[in-house]
Amino acid sequence: MDYIFSDCVTSFRSSAIRDLMSLATRSDIISFAGGMPGNELFPVEDLREMSQNFTRKEWEEAMQYGPTPGNPGLLAALKEFLRKRNFPVNTNELIITTGSLQGLNIIAKLFVNPGDTVVTENPVFIGGVSAFLSYQANIVGVDIDADGIDIEKLGEAVKLNPKLLYITPNFHNPAGTVYSHQRREQLLEVMRGTGIPIIEDDAYGELYFDEKSYHTSRPIKTWADREMDGQILYTGSFSKIFGPGLRVAWALVPPAICDKMQICKQSMDACTPAISQVFAQKFIETGKIETYINSLRTVYRKRCNCTLQAIDKYFPKEATFVKPQGGFYLWIKMPQGVDEEVLFKKVIERGAVFVLGSVFHPDAQKNGYIRISYCNTPEDQIDSGIKIIGDVLKELMTK
Amino acid sequence: MDYIFSDCVTSFRSSAIRDLMSLATRSDIISFAGGMPGNELFPVEDLREMSQNFTRKEWEEAMQYGPTPGNPGLLAALKEFLRKRNFPVNTNELIITTGSLQGLNIIAKLFVNPGDTVVTENPVFIGGVSAFLSYQANIVGVDIDADGIDIEKLGEAVKLNPKLLYITPNFHNPAGTVYSHQRREQLLEVMRGTGIPIIEDDAYGELYFDEKSYHTSRPIKTWADREMDGQILYTGSFSKIFGPGLRVAWALVPPAICDKMQICKQSMDACTPAISQVFAQKFIETGKIETYINSLRTVYRKRCNCTLQAIDKYFPKEATFVKPQGGFYLWIKMPQGVDEEVLFKKVIERGAVFVLGSVFHPDAQKNGYIRISYCNTPEDQIDSGIKIIGDVLKELMTK
Repeated sequence: MDYIFSDCVTSFRSSAIRDLMSLATRSDIISFAGGMPGNELFPVEDLREMSQNFTRKEWEEAMQYGPTPGNPGLLAALKEFLRKRNFPVNTNELIITTGSLQGLNIIAKLFVNPGDTVVTENPVFIGGVSAFLSYQANIVGVDIDADGIDIEKLGEAVKLNPKLLYITPNFHNPAGTVYSHQRREQLLEVMRGTGIPIIEDDAYGELYFDEKSYHTSRPIKTWADREMDGQILYTGSFSKIFGPGLRVAWALVPPAICDKMQICKQSMDACTPAISQVFAQKFIETGKIETYINSLRTVYRKRCNCTLQAIDKYFPKEATFVKPQGGFYLWIKMPQGVDEEVLFKKVIERGAVFVLGSVFHPDAQKNGYIRISYCNTPEDQIDSGIKIIGDVLKELMTK
Repeated sequence: MDYIFSDCVTSFRSSAIRDLMSLATRSDIISFAGGMPGNELFPVEDLREMSQNFTRKEWEEAMQYGPTPGNPGLLAALKEFLRKRNFPVNTNELIITTGSLQGLNIIAKLFVNPGDTVVTENPVFIGGVSAFLSYQANIVGVDIDADGIDIEKLGEAVKLNPKLLYITPNFHNPAGTVYSHQRREQLLEVMRGTGIPIIEDDAYGELYFDEKSYHTSRPIKTWADREMDGQILYTGSFSKIFGPGLRVAWALVPPAICDKMQICKQSMDACTPAISQVFAQKFIETGKIETYINSLRTVYRKRCNCTLQAIDKYFPKEATFVKPQGGFYLWIKMPQGVDEEVLFKKVIERGAVFVLGSVFHPDAQKNGYIRISYCNTPEDQIDSGIKIIGDVLKELMTK
């Protein structure tokens, strides 16, 4: 039979995420496609130990409904985790969400009427775009460069009276960049007084590679003045520092926003899975999380360096990129004359895969970029995988 | 600062669910308020055993992103679980949702434009209403009686051209009723040819008390003819047969609907927590789930009988209700002249609590009913808790 769907269904961007997932998880090729931690990195021994030590009461909590904003134990542990990192936990409120994507979705629902403008970066995290589009937002992408969002173009976009600004200042997906401190300050000045809520998505914020990038990457939420603090809706996540399969994330937002987010979440899934929250709480309380995050920084730095070395060996110099200071991604600009879609097909034929830049364009347009993730590729495969891409790149340049 | 929220925020029904949760979880009073399993009933030993036997690969799956429609292992196990129960798993598709509330929310998003009518029962599950309202639906409630929805009134409501019909034929929350087979058939005849999707919410379907109620409660989805099957969107859940803290449920729907639901879910939370899915899969595969469900049927039947005996002892005969054949709830009509809000206050003062009927009215109107849940009250507390309510009822009648 035929079904008559609502108007928002026509706004769904259907295939991109699904295609990405199926590419990222093919086992027969060397994948630089997945934006997820490698399976071999999950703290399985910690999980075993924690679950073996759960009391009956903890298992019961894990199986029961919890309060919509989050289970009190996790909220307390997370508040402490964030307080150590200088987040303004006393003037804002925490809400636990089912992945930070749910946080973005809820915020979109709170602020976006059909046809309203949402300003994002270009390129941009595709999940955020899908959330905004599902409320029929008009997405306006503002270019980013090595130092962050283009301030002049942001100023132009703000004149369109957007309902939200969505940014990822740290270890950007897909661009791999970090906003400079100056750019962060300029952004605040452009946004000051506009009343436009700024979503600061910091899913990768803990994954800085060294002391220098630690200092560059201090979240805006941790140092913005009181006036701007009220405009900043900060989202963080356990997905990259524990495991995305838990679907536990958080938003740190002004109380008036948290209140509405709770009510919205009540109609979406009632509460974030308690079993995931109990594990996350234990992971913080036992201190295991800090040790684990430290080990991840080392692993990802190594994988990044290994990838950079291979690129240095195999890629033509005309393929350019910003060297990552943390996170999961390299965003490579194609040499002139190279069609990334042709590259994509030939690379898959030879046994490797990455993601086309168009996937991260707000309007899914072809843009002459590709994304290479180093997060989920064992070091012993990186060299041969990058060689495949480099070889095809060079072949296409000489055609 | 002041925030400018979207139009849908004004449709949120704010406090009811939150108030309900806080009442249901107060430890200092005998509670008949919670619609959740008792903590003492969770299969903690099974959880311990399953988690101790997880392989490294299973823990990795538990921590990783999974496909949006659900992890293949759980989908296969659940398909078998449903096949045994005669569900049409070959002509429909399964999608795993983060609680069945998420399933309802997604279906609402797929079909409801602001101002569209959704027909529900009256009384009705408050979570469903909150999901429909969050898309600015116009809720039209149709009365139910001991045998199910009022067919004549349903016919009238269908003339309003609703986008959805939402029903809970089995062990209704809050009414505790089961649709008779005749009423189910009459419902199908009213809906036939209208093209209006029917959400058959069966969260309590496994919790029949005996052979007779098993036969009465066969889900419409399992026996509807092919034509009507395309109209029935069936939702089931692990919340009442394993644990709500997992937030794992499912929808069994026609392929064209499942496809849209997947895309919608991608923008909501990407996937249901893998850790919950791995536990649910094991619980089915090991056969533990069937043993556990059997034990629950016995426990809830006992608690129900215990509550009925206490009511027989302490309630005035003028307080009437339909005797439950399964599920969690008793829906009590107040004797003439008794104001349930006065009752509510006095009962809390004396140390017990239930939920006011207005909470389950589609428009939150006072209706002369109260809901008593027996699912979460230990048997040794039931008698004294019911005595408190009965005593106050009698006092109010003689005033």
